[in-house]
Amino acid sequence: LRAAIITIGNEILKGKTINSNAAEIGRLLYFSGYEVWRGLMVPDREEDIGQAFREMCSKSDVVVSTGGLGPTFDDITVESFAAEFGFQLVLNKEAYEDIKNRSTAKGLPMTKEREKMAYVPKGAKIIRNTVGTAPGIYMNIGGCKVFILPGVPSEMRAMLDFVGRKIRLENSFYKEESIIVTGIYEATIAPYISDLMKKYGDEVYIKTHPSVSPLSGESHLEIEISAHSDKPEKAEEIISRLKEEIMRISESIHKLK
Amino acid sequence: LRAAIITIGNEILKGKTINSNAAEIGRLLYFSGYEVWRGLMVPDREEDIGQAFREMCSKSDVVVSTGGLGPTFDDITVESFAAEFGFQLVLNKEAYEDIKNRSTAKGLPMTKEREKMAYVPKGAKIIRNTVGTAPGIYMNIGGCKVFILPGVPSEMRAMLDFVGRKIRLENSFYKEESIIVTGIYEATIAPYISDLMKKYGDEVYIKTHPSVSPLSGESHLEIEISAHSDKPEKAEEIISRLKEEIMRISESIHKLK
Repeated sequence: LRAAIITIGNEILKGKTINSNAAEIGRLLYFSGYEVWRGLMVPDREEDIGQAFREMCSKSDVVVSTGGLGPTFDDITVESFAAEFGFQLVLNKEAYEDIKNRSTAKGLPMTKEREKMAYVPKGAKIIRNTVGTAPGIYMNIGGCKVFILPGVPSEMRAMLDFVGRKIRLENSFYKEESIIVTGIYEATIAPYISDLMKKYGDEVYIKTHPSVSPLSGESHLEIEISAHSDKPEKAEEIISRLKEEIMRISESIHKLK
Repeated sequence: LRAAIITIGNEILKGKTINSNAAEIGRLLYFSGYEVWRGLMVPDREEDIGQAFREMCSKSDVVVSTGGLGPTFDDITVESFAAEFGFQLVLNKEAYEDIKNRSTAKGLPMTKEREKMAYVPKGAKIIRNTVGTAPGIYMNIGGCKVFILPGVPSEMRAMLDFVGRKIRLENSFYKEESIIVTGIYEATIAPYISDLMKKYGDEVYIKTHPSVSPLSGESHLEIEISAHSDKPEKAEEIISRLKEEIMRISESIHKLK
């Protein structure tokens, strides 16, 4: 099952904001058993936003977006999404009440800009915002589950529980572990890792992340092993077998020196 | 002029690594006068990497990628790029010597995996790696300047000077400033900002970033103004005029309370 992430906002593309939202969403999707096959970062422009949803929805089972749900002129995610697919925007009463209550509590009037946040595509569900004002949106488009979340990290994070419940899969278990080895270069162990990947096939992925200790100058290598399976015991068994094999390989590399 | 960023690596999509490289590259491109219109995050898979370069190069003046240049089986950026455009991979002597010297200094043999990093598309220039091993690659494809950089942030960063020199534009100046106002909600100032944007047109962009002080609970609003112009004085002048207008608007909002 394939999932994609769309991050919306000029501030992301020009590097004012680091795209930490995409990483948080990616972790949720990955640990839920999905293959995250693409991430897109697009500016606050209707055409780009619409195209991104169109392309990602046509090729994914789940699409999660963040950004562009606020009250300002350049928060146009919902409008762009609705225009692309030809959905009418309708006032959602629950969203309107939430926004109004939040504004009233702060002694603020209900302006056109605040009201805008209560309009959602016809047929969509809202995801209530427990941290800020703009609601999120959930919609199923031809089998693709689309989640439109705010860009403010705390608001986005508070909606991930909802996303997690909606995308949960039965019979898909995922396990991941890392081994840290020292004094072994990535290029030295690379051919062995390559052989292991071939031997175990599709359900296993091994990736190496080199780093050098700033104090000792010693090279560390993190070897990250992940396994997917239909039973949790099977995933665990694969991981422990792989760990043993990698430890054996590391020892033999050390002995060769 | 349009620029795009491609980040390559499963670790980015599954959220193990936060995509800080894209933000650093975005800043360079933006401050050099380019419109960063798209960021892509793709997994370590030949087809996805190839497609990403094909699509971004066809629609951009500059494309910068990071990731997938190391020695392991899943570092396939250069192969995928070359395969997509039909470029032959040839051994680059300078790169080979650099890699060999670095390995020898560490007492390591020149393996097949290390040698792989010295193969570059025919006609490409290498960008020497002063921090790590794998060289970067620079190539002009039909008017699009393509930079292929490593994923390790310190190695990537060390090559940004080279990128900056190659993409420098004459007669394009950029200026940016932020004003912080307190006690004003984003939705309250939104219609005024919208009017300002219409008044000044294409060369100006104003974006608001709300945040709440965790200590006082007071709401801060950062109002970010940026201007592009063909003369530095002009960009500065636009910014200072805008600052005045925004300060006036903020004062009048405060008086209305």
